[in-house]
Amino acid sequence: MSILSCPLPQRTSERILLGHGGGGRLTNQLIEDIFLPAFASTARHAHHDGALLNVGGGRLAMTTDTYVVHPLIFPGGTIGDLAVNGTVNDLAMCGAQPIALSAGFVLEEGLPMETLVCVVNSMRDAALVAHVPIVTGDTKVVDNGKGDGIFINTTGIGRVIAPNVIGPESVRAGDVVIISGNLGDHGIAILSVRAGLEFEGPVSSDTASLWPSVEALLEAGIEIHCMRDLTRGGLSSALNEIATVAGLRITVEEALIPVSDIVRGACELLGLDPLYVANEGRFAIFVAEADAERAITVLRGQSVSNGAVNVGAVHEHRSGIVTVRSRIGGNRVLDMMSGEQLPRIC
Amino acid sequence: MSILSCPLPQRTSERILLGHGGGGRLTNQLIEDIFLPAFASTARHAHHDGALLNVGGGRLAMTTDTYVVHPLIFPGGTIGDLAVNGTVNDLAMCGAQPIALSAGFVLEEGLPMETLVCVVNSMRDAALVAHVPIVTGDTKVVDNGKGDGIFINTTGIGRVIAPNVIGPESVRAGDVVIISGNLGDHGIAILSVRAGLEFEGPVSSDTASLWPSVEALLEAGIEIHCMRDLTRGGLSSALNEIATVAGLRITVEEALIPVSDIVRGACELLGLDPLYVANEGRFAIFVAEADAERAITVLRGQSVSNGAVNVGAVHEHRSGIVTVRSRIGGNRVLDMMSGEQLPRIC
Repeated sequence: MSILSCPLPQRTSERILLGHGGGGRLTNQLIEDIFLPAFASTARHAHHDGALLNVGGGRLAMTTDTYVVHPLIFPGGTIGDLAVNGTVNDLAMCGAQPIALSAGFVLEEGLPMETLVCVVNSMRDAALVAHVPIVTGDTKVVDNGKGDGIFINTTGIGRVIAPNVIGPESVRAGDVVIISGNLGDHGIAILSVRAGLEFEGPVSSDTASLWPSVEALLEAGIEIHCMRDLTRGGLSSALNEIATVAGLRITVEEALIPVSDIVRGACELLGLDPLYVANEGRFAIFVAEADAERAITVLRGQSVSNGAVNVGAVHEHRSGIVTVRSRIGGNRVLDMMSGEQLPRIC
Repeated sequence: MSILSCPLPQRTSERILLGHGGGGRLTNQLIEDIFLPAFASTARHAHHDGALLNVGGGRLAMTTDTYVVHPLIFPGGTIGDLAVNGTVNDLAMCGAQPIALSAGFVLEEGLPMETLVCVVNSMRDAALVAHVPIVTGDTKVVDNGKGDGIFINTTGIGRVIAPNVIGPESVRAGDVVIISGNLGDHGIAILSVRAGLEFEGPVSSDTASLWPSVEALLEAGIEIHCMRDLTRGGLSSALNEIATVAGLRITVEEALIPVSDIVRGACELLGLDPLYVANEGRFAIFVAEADAERAITVLRGQSVSNGAVNVGAVHEHRSGIVTVRSRIGGNRVLDMMSGEQLPRIC
């Protein structure tokens, strides 16, 4: 009876839960059960951060993201630069050079104007650093108590520079998995402010544009099979999505994955796994093994990815799966995140 | 000292008010004082609903809008079809055929899944009618009490078809002002549900794609000087924005402006002026007088604009101003809306 009276159907619940925004299993269920069936009839769909369009003679990428991070201002960034960098990065992950962003604001009545000014100025600064213009915008205001300060949508279009298809479908057995630097800084920075925690040292968000690293890889002629920025759901969710679509097994070596001592300590204290913690300036790259060493050298030449390391590889398998070899040598399945580790991280 | 330490310019209040989202004077102040100074350094700016971009050999328009309408479902539509039609219309107003939309959702924890499904399906239907694919999306969830059911950002890109520049700067003395049909239905439909009012008859939102009408005008070879959809702030705010940028006087004849008897009665009852009430499927077009009759014929051939009428004209003036000649013959200035007539209308 308890099973029969369970209010949740097997896959989709009857109400929206915080976990539906977490970037893990519930988010994927929402997309599969509700959004794709509706929107697939209007468009070709792809399991990727951006859509590819043929416009005139050129190839464009288009991507959208709404930012609801709490608090609005945190060590290393604000919701404003997060909104610019996040969308720039989604374009970069498609191999596309950002050419224009839009900005849509939902402001809560009573928001201090100086908070808005601070956030808008950090958007300006991030846009200037990323060399991408904010070309159009929109502002809505909701009643006090019906929003939470500021929500920002940024949508971007970019010119696809990569000569080959970048996506999970291009991943091959034998590919190497490279990550661009240490994991978990953004998530722990947010958590430190939100919970009022102090760790052994300061932790700043890693929010940054990843386009310079991607551009350098493309200019070096490296054939990128797939890239993914490691935001909501962290490395584990990104790898699981890719493994599922590619129908391959991805293995990573826990000992090779860089995590700072402070972040590792904070994660141990809080019972978090850094492989699930969100980043806003880190990405994973899949290339053929023959290109791996050169790709790492190129990545290390860019400040945002100067901690690039080879952390794993891709193998044939009967279905998509991610496994991690732990420090003590055992293998375990690294599952997609279920529910929500830390709501409103971006 | 107080001036030196003041973080804000004089014109702007210290906190966000509902009126900052109303599409009238306060919205314009926010744009002029905060958004343009920051974002102008990242991009050329234009006082228009969309940005124009040169991509490859082609001209693209890009526009963004976030929808926070309350309630989510209302007579004649939902927040979903409003979000699709609104962004399609902003592209159409640039003379651009919509080619792709993105959809970014902010969902409130606890939202009934069936409400989401209803809204998503109405987006699908509107996208199919407008022949525009929804190519990419994003979902965020905020805690219960930190949102209001569903907010949706739609951003669109379109291929500019119009051969000439469409915008306030192309408006000339001698131009005629045509509106595409009766005004005020959307605003009064929302208000009727929100206030639980019943009027003499049912009023449905006019939400619809305006692209078929614009396409028909372009195919007929009519040189459109300017177009504007009459959303937040209604006809009066749209005309004021155009008059200000063009530096001309726009006159309209109140007796020629079509308003249904039910909407007129509701407005009288509620003390509203239909010239300030929001529409979601009506637009104003500026063309040379020589083209006016043919433009009206073309517009009347499309169901969404079959009530098109000539309501006014453009004259030389030392500064931008809008005047209305009332039914009894007097002239008055039709000012931009100050504050917020009806919050969260779109």
